[in-house]
Amino acid sequence: MKRIITLPTDFGLKDTYVAEIKAAIYSINPEVIIVDMTHEIERHNIRQAAFILRESSRHFPKGTIHVTVVDPGVGSKFQNPLIMETEKYIFIGPDNGVLYPAAIENDLKKVYAIIPNEIVKYTGRKISRTFHGRDIYAPTAALISKGVPINEIAREVADFIKLELKDATRENDIILGEVLYIDYFGNVITNVREEMIPENCKKLTLEVRGRSIEIPIVESYSEVQPGEKLAIIGSKGFLEISINLGNAAKFFGLREGEKLKIKLCEI
Amino acid sequence: MKRIITLPTDFGLKDTYVAEIKAAIYSINPEVIIVDMTHEIERHNIRQAAFILRESSRHFPKGTIHVTVVDPGVGSKFQNPLIMETEKYIFIGPDNGVLYPAAIENDLKKVYAIIPNEIVKYTGRKISRTFHGRDIYAPTAALISKGVPINEIAREVADFIKLELKDATRENDIILGEVLYIDYFGNVITNVREEMIPENCKKLTLEVRGRSIEIPIVESYSEVQPGEKLAIIGSKGFLEISINLGNAAKFFGLREGEKLKIKLCEI
Amino acid sequence: MKRIITLPTDFGLKDTYVAEIKAAIYSINPEVIIVDMTHEIERHNIRQAAFILRESSRHFPKGTIHVTVVDPGVGSKFQNPLIMETEKYIFIGPDNGVLYPAAIENDLKKVYAIIPNEIVKYTGRKISRTFHGRDIYAPTAALISKGVPINEIAREVADFIKLELKDATRENDIILGEVLYIDYFGNVITNVREEMIPENCKKLTLEVRGRSIEIPIVESYSEVQPGEKLAIIGSKGFLEISINLGNAAKFFGLREGEKLKIKLCEI
Repeated sequence: MKRIITLPTDFGLKDTYVAEIKAAIYSINPEVIIVDMTHEIERHNIRQAAFILRESSRHFPKGTIHVTVVDPGVGSKFQNPLIMETEKYIFIGPDNGVLYPAAIENDLKKVYAIIPNEIVKYTGRKISRTFHGRDIYAPTAALISKGVPINEIAREVADFIKLELKDATRENDIILGEVLYIDYFGNVITNVREEMIPENCKKLTLEVRGRSIEIPIVESYSEVQPGEKLAIIGSKGFLEISINLGNAAKFFGLREGEKLKIKLCEI
Repeated sequence: MKRIITLPTDFGLKDTYVAEIKAAIYSINPEVIIVDMTHEIERHNIRQAAFILRESSRHFPKGTIHVTVVDPGVGSKFQNPLIMETEKYIFIGPDNGVLYPAAIENDLKKVYAIIPNEIVKYTGRKISRTFHGRDIYAPTAALISKGVPINEIAREVADFIKLELKDATRENDIILGEVLYIDYFGNVITNVREEMIPENCKKLTLEVRGRSIEIPIVESYSEVQPGEKLAIIGSKGFLEISINLGNAAKFFGLREGEKLKIKLCEI
Repeated sequence: MKRIITLPTDFGLKDTYVAEIKAAIYSINPEVIIVDMTHEIERHNIRQAAFILRESSRHFPKGTIHVTVVDPGVGSKFQNPLIMETEKYIFIGPDNGVLYPAAIENDLKKVYAIIPNEIVKYTGRKISRTFHGRDIYAPTAALISKGVPINEIAREVADFIKLELKDATRENDIILGEVLYIDYFGNVITNVREEMIPENCKKLTLEVRGRSIEIPIVESYSEVQPGEKLAIIGSKGFLEISINLGNAAKFFGLREGEKLKIKLCEI
């Protein structure tokens, strides 16, 4: 069975950094499948990266290795390069919290600090000060994909950063949540999970910036006219606020991290 | 022989939607080759997508499966997920007309509506309301690439949307056409086919917005000086209006869909 | 061993040009690995492309074929499609100088002009006037990756364009250099090689546009506070000017090609 390595990064696509990561992987294991998870994570936005990694990694088959390179602290002596081993996946990346939400959702088993000198033994290349994605994380993933045991290139650690992504909370018909992510279409993805919305509830009132807006909860965009507001359980399993054929984030002026108060229909 | 699956979509590259489509494909068939045809189709622009699909699909080898996800009506009860089977290719996507021009150009044989429940049997995953690209089209392509017979996962249909992309018309030395597509370089791709331009005709007059502009028809950009206008048969086999090392669309203020009147040299 | 073909181009990602290049390659050899080196080279910027190719190609394993499509003179009778054969890599692209700096750094052995008619024999497709990337370079790379001898599809040539990328010069504590490249993060990559900076030198004075700015030379971004200037040996082995968590190019108003005078600490 072919192994998949995914790459969620904040490198953008202008430069050759992503290609150099792929070169480092294929140099060790040309039989692997590499998938660009996205390279457009907001620069240095660890929370956004953690959310994207947690929500997208789940679609990949067992055995997939997810290599996250959102690494504003690269080269710092105080930051270990980490491997988080879970039942289903291997997560590789910096010790800045970015891997943690995905790892705990997948039943985190062990956390390791990569030993850079062990990687150099395989690659024969000096580790640069600014690009551990290419020089440490990528070869680590490639070595694991080839079957090198993790404890030959890393040592178990107990101390690492634990970033938490909080779900919305609900009390009776009031949900307090926030905007987790805004996608390219302007869909506003909240941290309100599907299970929080009663099935017979067909509308909500969104309170944002002093305004109260009533929005129908629908099962498909086309239930409302083009240009109309709607709420829907999106493809990630969270409540999303959208405008049919429009851009809800622009319309409401919403940004990631913004607090939301949602009043459900009385039940 | 390895099968190729191409992905023309309007998802952009910021989000992980494309990666999730690939995850869905590789989960079923890791031996397939996936090619990003483009993810920058203008949002919800079905005509543009239909043109891109028709013109680019032809370069792929026989057996390629083209999965088009430009799907503003996703989740509507009135829209079937379709498979169009042609002599050379399989086209998969929504029933909004987007597949039709490519399919008829490749000698359309049969059209099927995908049966979502049959797909769920293979994937074991619920189908989301907003992302049939990942939950229906991608697994359908992967299953077909593995040899699952189409009639096990779809039923033939006779009723589907037939979008037409019209070619330019010519009467004597006058061509009436339109702008089909403007590329990243600002080249203006028209719906005037190579065969409409007599070989001995070396110039044309473009009438646009009340202006008449004389333009030489050349065989390479470098036949004119940098900054000069030119007309050339482009790589898609259509007449293109360009500026050597410049941006013709900006210079002429042309947009996709704009009508063009072209006077050929008198012959 | 699987062969890798890399694609550095200025095509951007909006259009399907890159996908058509991949179609041309896979049509001949579906067993090859294609890596997008970058498609965001500045349009028609041969110097930038030459730098990117030289610096990024080195990370790929022996046998990699690098296909560079930055080709403002495409279709000109005076420009040969070239193959540059080196000890480690094959470089393919137009005769406009773009391949040369990478080829000499890898010990250039032979230069060949591709014979278009020989390519057509394999592909059976007409060569367009505007897209030799798809119609000549891509099939050439695919044929070589399958083991077709170069001299069956190309003839050796002695005459070709030799573009040179100059390194900075140093006299005592003064370095005269220039900006080679500005990356997506705003890091300013200079043509000052690592070896020019004495190990015990921990600061420099950058003279740019009449201003003198003192900048510490560090080993990791995090040695300075967020928002502070720093100089560091970057992942390409050149001196880079950066701002921790900021955009140095914007801050200093620097552009590619701009001359720099750097005064090292007195030693």
